Amino acid sequence: MSSDPFSSLRCRVALLGFGTVGSAVARRLAAPSAPNTLQLTHIFDRRAVEKRAKQRLEQSAVAGRNIMWTDRIDDVLQSDADVVVEAVGGVDPAADWIRAALAAGKSVVTANKQVIARDGAPLLSFAARQGRQLRFEAAVGGAMPIVRAIGDGLAGDRITRIVAILNGTTNTVLSQMEETGCTLEDAVHAAQARGYAEADPATDLDGDDARAKLAILCALAFGLRVDPAQIRARSCATVTPADVARARRRGAVIRQLAHAEYDAGSSSLVAWVAPIEVPCGSIFGRTRGAHNAALITGEHSGDTGIFGIGAGGDATAVAILSDLAAIARDKAAIVPPPVLSADFKLAEAV
Amino acid sequence: MSSDPFSSLRCRVALLGFGTVGSAVARRLAAPSAPNTLQLTHIFDRRAVEKRAKQRLEQSAVAGRNIMWTDRIDDVLQSDADVVVEAVGGVDPAADWIRAALAAGKSVVTANKQVIARDGAPLLSFAARQGRQLRFEAAVGGAMPIVRAIGDGLAGDRITRIVAILNGTTNTVLSQMEETGCTLEDAVHAAQARGYAEADPATDLDGDDARAKLAILCALAFGLRVDPAQIRARSCATVTPADVARARRRGAVIRQLAHAEYDAGSSSLVAWVAPIEVPCGSIFGRTRGAHNAALITGEHSGDTGIFGIGAGGDATAVAILSDLAAIARDKAAIVPPPVLSADFKLAEAV
Repeated sequence: MSSDPFSSLRCRVALLGFGTVGSAVARRLAAPSAPNTLQLTHIFDRRAVEKRAKQRLEQSAVAGRNIMWTDRIDDVLQSDADVVVEAVGGVDPAADWIRAALAAGKSVVTANKQVIARDGAPLLSFAARQGRQLRFEAAVGGAMPIVRAIGDGLAGDRITRIVAILNGTTNTVLSQMEETGCTLEDAVHAAQARGYAEADPATDLDGDDARAKLAILCALAFGLRVDPAQIRARSCATVTPADVARARRRGAVIRQLAHAEYDAGSSSLVAWVAPIEVPCGSIFGRTRGAHNAALITGEHSGDTGIFGIGAGGDATAVAILSDLAAIARDKAAIVPPPVLSADFKLAEAV
Repeated sequence: MSSDPFSSLRCRVALLGFGTVGSAVARRLAAPSAPNTLQLTHIFDRRAVEKRAKQRLEQSAVAGRNIMWTDRIDDVLQSDADVVVEAVGGVDPAADWIRAALAAGKSVVTANKQVIARDGAPLLSFAARQGRQLRFEAAVGGAMPIVRAIGDGLAGDRITRIVAILNGTTNTVLSQMEETGCTLEDAVHAAQARGYAEADPATDLDGDDARAKLAILCALAFGLRVDPAQIRARSCATVTPADVARARRRGAVIRQLAHAEYDAGSSSLVAWVAPIEVPCGSIFGRTRGAHNAALITGEHSGDTGIFGIGAGGDATAVAILSDLAAIARDKAAIVPPPVLSADFKLAEAV
């Protein structure tokens, strides 16, 4: 009795990369509580055999499902998957794989800030020409839905400024320094021990990660294509316990802020990432550990704020599942694209 | 050379109601900075003649445009408008007009919390059957994009709790009481003088407004159809200066909180709106004047927060323009729907 001929369609999902984020996505999709419109069908990983064996050993739900594991990307590109989740990270070969997936008629969900910062505009155009979706809520802010807040929710305003904490690792390190008075090195080691920092935290502390994310927000908010390298950055790696103590005496804490301000009249953009003293009681001062926060200023809406968990597999998986849900709602992204050159015959009248 | 045959299409917008919100929307759409994909073509108002004359007298851009003003709803329903913005308010006849607009093949954007709280589910189903959109970001939270945050951005999580300040008028009154020590009556008069409160503030203070908004958020977050009347409410109208002073001695302030918590396991919902003491430094204690704020708790994403200007014509117009932008992006909502019974002839091959 359904009036919708597509209502029983499932969205078949292929996953690229079974690391922290990819495995969290797989667990969510394989769980009994997963939306029944989303079906995990393929997992690609360079070490697919080994990782699959480990899942089996752990009797994980991911191993128990009817999922094809592969270490050949073509198995995914040539598959019947409707959507590809890219959780490989890095620019190469992730960007090529995203393009290839779109070319193969698949929609793509990615957590890859580097690829979107560098190639977001042409990839989005290509996706539109293909009649497919490219979504990237997970590329900025973890579970904090800032991509939708800026790209959709405040699309009806002219945004003039964004100030944000966008790197959970640096924020964890700076929070630890202010709580314990320890050195940056000790705070980094503590964060590494708890899995909140990479072996080499330079990308986080120096601001490269935040620059890529800020470049994406500049594209969404101001319609500007900004090369992350154009964004000035001052590293947090030189912050000392004395800096933290001095800030405290002024009722402040130090945060890695990402700042972008655009004046449409003069077409001038000011954008930087740097360690900045902020009042303890401000939204940024109150953002601790792996949390992210942003203040978005609009000509008509004033200041709109958003905050949430900015890092980690589970939080990032929430953003990816939200993007998958949006694609599953859009039947045009699931139904095979029209093949204009193939033979056809007219269907019988119903 | 455009590869997109619809790229030059404009989205024609008809506006129902030229009050505070409607006139703010009209000003934005008639401004030189308005997106050129959105064209205001019709304004319906019961007092169209009078209001149009006033716009002309003021040499408003709204009067100068090629816009049809009318006091007959059928002029809009039978027009070539693609989208109807409903800014009339109240349940009757707004709900009928929204349904009629969808039936006429138009998408609808509304700021009407009462209609969405009561009839949102069947109206959304009807819109989907029509292949049209029904959007209502402006119904909750003014410019604060909470409808998208819950309905889209956190759709990938299982939301368990929402706590929020949803009524800007009550928050303005309570903020004024804590700033000046005045009575509720005086604070209401001050808010009325500044245009922040209606002549009869009962709907705001008693919690009816917040209950309707909370019912909408329960539908988005938990998939539950909740009658606003089922939500328990304790009025803020009885808050005294002594209550405010007592809270202050405890480092707290009084806020009208809307609270909803759903346990999917036992299918039990706890939902209420009431004046509550909150710590001064908390997100709710720091929410003053016409601002709104919300904390959304998810099983995997923890607490996500959002805040912004929750009331007023300009802020509400931002949400409406954001919804219009989303519809204008969706070509299927602009291109006339397929007429399945009409004669046709095959187009010539290109």
